[in-house]
Amino acid sequence: MTKLVTWQNFQQHYIYLPELGIALDTSRMNVPDFLPKKLEILFRNAFQQMHNLEEGGIANHDENRMVGHYWLRNPELAPTSDIKAVISSTFKRIQKFSAGIHGNKILPQKASSFQNLLLLGIGGSALGPQFIKSVFISEADKMEFYSLDNTDPDGIDQVMTSIGSGLRETLTLVVSKSGETKETRNLMLEVRNLYKRAGLDFAKHAVAITRVKSHLDRLATKENWLERFPMWDWVGGRTSLFSSVGLLPSALQGLNIHEFIAGAKTMDEITRSSELKNNPAAQMAWMWYHAGRERGEKTMVLLPYKDRLQFLSRYLQQLIMESIGKEKDLVGKKVNQGLTVFGNKGSTDQHAFVQQLRDGTADFFVTFIEVLKFSSNGSLEVEPGITSGDFLNGFLLGTREALFQNGRTSLTITLEEINTRTLGALIALFERAVGLYAFLIGINAYHQPGVEAGKLAAGDVIELSVKIQNHLSSNPKQQFTASLLANALRETEKTETVFQLLLHLAANGRIQKLPGRNYFSAGFQAN
Amino acid sequence: MTKLVTWQNFQQHYIYLPELGIALDTSRMNVPDFLPKKLEILFRNAFQQMHNLEEGGIANHDENRMVGHYWLRNPELAPTSDIKAVISSTFKRIQKFSAGIHGNKILPQKASSFQNLLLLGIGGSALGPQFIKSVFISEADKMEFYSLDNTDPDGIDQVMTSIGSGLRETLTLVVSKSGETKETRNLMLEVRNLYKRAGLDFAKHAVAITRVKSHLDRLATKENWLERFPMWDWVGGRTSLFSSVGLLPSALQGLNIHEFIAGAKTMDEITRSSELKNNPAAQMAWMWYHAGRERGEKTMVLLPYKDRLQFLSRYLQQLIMESIGKEKDLVGKKVNQGLTVFGNKGSTDQHAFVQQLRDGTADFFVTFIEVLKFSSNGSLEVEPGITSGDFLNGFLLGTREALFQNGRTSLTITLEEINTRTLGALIALFERAVGLYAFLIGINAYHQPGVEAGKLAAGDVIELSVKIQNHLSSNPKQQFTASLLANALRETEKTETVFQLLLHLAANGRIQKLPGRNYFSAGFQAN
Repeated sequence: MTKLVTWQNFQQHYIYLPELGIALDTSRMNVPDFLPKKLEILFRNAFQQMHNLEEGGIANHDENRMVGHYWLRNPELAPTSDIKAVISSTFKRIQKFSAGIHGNKILPQKASSFQNLLLLGIGGSALGPQFIKSVFISEADKMEFYSLDNTDPDGIDQVMTSIGSGLRETLTLVVSKSGETKETRNLMLEVRNLYKRAGLDFAKHAVAITRVKSHLDRLATKENWLERFPMWDWVGGRTSLFSSVGLLPSALQGLNIHEFIAGAKTMDEITRSSELKNNPAAQMAWMWYHAGRERGEKTMVLLPYKDRLQFLSRYLQQLIMESIGKEKDLVGKKVNQGLTVFGNKGSTDQHAFVQQLRDGTADFFVTFIEVLKFSSNGSLEVEPGITSGDFLNGFLLGTREALFQNGRTSLTITLEEINTRTLGALIALFERAVGLYAFLIGINAYHQPGVEAGKLAAGDVIELSVKIQNHLSSNPKQQFTASLLANALRETEKTETVFQLLLHLAANGRIQKLPGRNYFSAGFQAN
Repeated sequence: MTKLVTWQNFQQHYIYLPELGIALDTSRMNVPDFLPKKLEILFRNAFQQMHNLEEGGIANHDENRMVGHYWLRNPELAPTSDIKAVISSTFKRIQKFSAGIHGNKILPQKASSFQNLLLLGIGGSALGPQFIKSVFISEADKMEFYSLDNTDPDGIDQVMTSIGSGLRETLTLVVSKSGETKETRNLMLEVRNLYKRAGLDFAKHAVAITRVKSHLDRLATKENWLERFPMWDWVGGRTSLFSSVGLLPSALQGLNIHEFIAGAKTMDEITRSSELKNNPAAQMAWMWYHAGRERGEKTMVLLPYKDRLQFLSRYLQQLIMESIGKEKDLVGKKVNQGLTVFGNKGSTDQHAFVQQLRDGTADFFVTFIEVLKFSSNGSLEVEPGITSGDFLNGFLLGTREALFQNGRTSLTITLEEINTRTLGALIALFERAVGLYAFLIGINAYHQPGVEAGKLAAGDVIELSVKIQNHLSSNPKQQFTASLLANALRETEKTETVFQLLLHLAANGRIQKLPGRNYFSAGFQAN
């Protein structure tokens, strides 16, 4: 069923980038040796559109915005001198601020130095920094990194308990592009309350990363926070790693952000080539197109054989799924596109779900990620001539083969080693593959219209909760079933939601629940 | 396209279990109000087979094994008095051992008490304990929990560095059912080497969890480790949470394992009912059957709106995908079944991939998990009358509605609160849904034949690496291209693998790489 990969075949479908020590192997994707004619035309158009985008064209039509994350790696590309200037000046300010924190020139209110970094953000404002941190975390880190990325009181409690009295040495970054994200606003209110309870002035420990003049920016200005760094409407949250969102936490952690940017810049340059055989991003876009038959019919299982890369799938879930998962194409036709991503790490996942991958539904392709060099000095032989790392490598090669023998395709990205430079390049590789693939299938990769509906519906729920509480406290001794209360509020079509909210309020002791004839006719009243 | 969920409709598709404070809401799955005739017959058979399984029939025919994880919650069900006795005695030994550790009756070699717990295992020997730990981690824990679950030297380094000099206070559990898992063997060798380098005797800090007389068991006996706990061939790795594998780490963490077992036992009892309307496990099996049209055509996106449950999807990936992802059905027909699971947590994932869920490919259904009661005392109002937790709840209800309006179905499991009892019940609920669903679609949920192929292929790779190293060191001054070396080893059909292995060895300084005419004709020789 599956042709064997010969040595010849392998070489033909393998790109090695000596500038970065990164390779892409597509020999197990069962694509033809040459690009089909139809795709040639689509790629010509994709490269042209990518060119227009990089030149500052309005690539995100729905929001009437430019798409400029590539400029962050090479400000010379930016379409205006203002943008060039603000990218460079922001970079310098990030370095200066980080040096000030590390060199104890910027001090907390009641401690001798900032030792902890606490990031408050969600989605594009958290996943990137969390990912970078998890890759490079080491004893050499200049600050201990914490983050809060949800509006869960128990989750907040857990992290803040582990910071404990270290709060006095904690620098808090509040990250929200719009400056109006509810989860992040809640996190800020919860955290500032804890500073207050510890006798500390939040503003003296806080930094805002947000667009200029946003609600958050104005608050930080008014309260004179330690610093404010800008986000721009031409950088999307899911591609904001090379803006302040990613660079400031990385710099504070002590990473080499120059190299991080340089790696991405080099990958950008390589992947501008319209020669497919030299362009790994275009190759990946082709593979996605081929595997999913233009429609995202196959899920991408991401298997980095490297513990430090375990968070990558969460990062890529956002980058890929939020970019590609769209209802309509650029001309408004309903297409319901998508490209699902999941996975953790090999060989661990072999013991979790490779059973299904090999024997079950063939509804996926795998992206293996291999790192050749181990950074640890552990060279213990677990068998004669063989180390633990040899096993890791052997499991990757073996699993790939076992899957391929059963007709399950895969591509492999090899990094000679992981460092800020190669990681920057890896992220750029995926960003550009996403960009090209979106043009191939004719969608806008830079908006997210579907997110709004959930937020609006949540807003309605919150509003209903307020109404319920008000009604109960205005009728203090009266008992209501969900049904009666919905009637009283003239929200009968929302009786179920009323019931759900009553359960939630009662479970948290904010109202009383009294047994009814059955579960659904329980009574509720104010405390 | 999608019918509205009325209050009436909702009540009809909602099961509440007062014994556990757990509810299942299937009102947004678009199933008919009554079970189709065809499924009635399939369910009758499934309940019968589940009954036979619980009575000790050979339910795993391929491996000629009984399937007894339900007995662990109620030893009275076990088919022989030997099994009853060993379950009870093991439980008592777990409690005694944990008490001995906590009460400083069992002491490390050169420290005054055991403070850390280090678990070495992979797949079924790690995911369960890691999950439980992540749900209940708190300041009250009696030991600090670490785990190693991969054969990655850098990953090992990272964890062991964070334990540091705490190794003298570290109890190490080596967990492998077969006692021959290579990754776990490697971990044990790496870790015992570190004990040795710290001047410590590994055996005085080690506990084995494995089947009696396995290689690991014999080693632990010979070296007189602190303790050995049994695994049994009638418990599969992915359902081993209620055996020593899950109970010992939980007891050592300080959790109430009585309640954990009691919760699972209660759920087992409830879900033995052949009345579908009272049986949430059967309802879930029906939903999976319905959503995926008997063929796993839809992915299950798991969205717990609870930070502490973020690891659940990884746990369920193994439980569900390894159980359901099968090539053949019970009569040997090729069916390629599967049920893919992924997800992290809400509302965080809303900012990552709900865009695709709402607008993109409709190739999934969602399982929402809601926890009504917050355990933190944080009741800060972020808006008048509204807490952070109200927002979390609001986002769940809102997102569910926004998805349903676009024809994306979901089911919701509600826990009144998370504790050991409800978590035990939740795990049992999924275990029994898996068991029933497997019978509905006629597959063996208890073997994993597809895992073997990857292991064998990996073994071949390791063997080839040894051959390569031997050949290079036997010909010390000679340079080989991959192609020449493959020839010399008479492995020309494996030239690519030879090349991959040479790259890997060279990257880690174990052989030299010399530039060739092109990347593929690089020369390699011994150091």
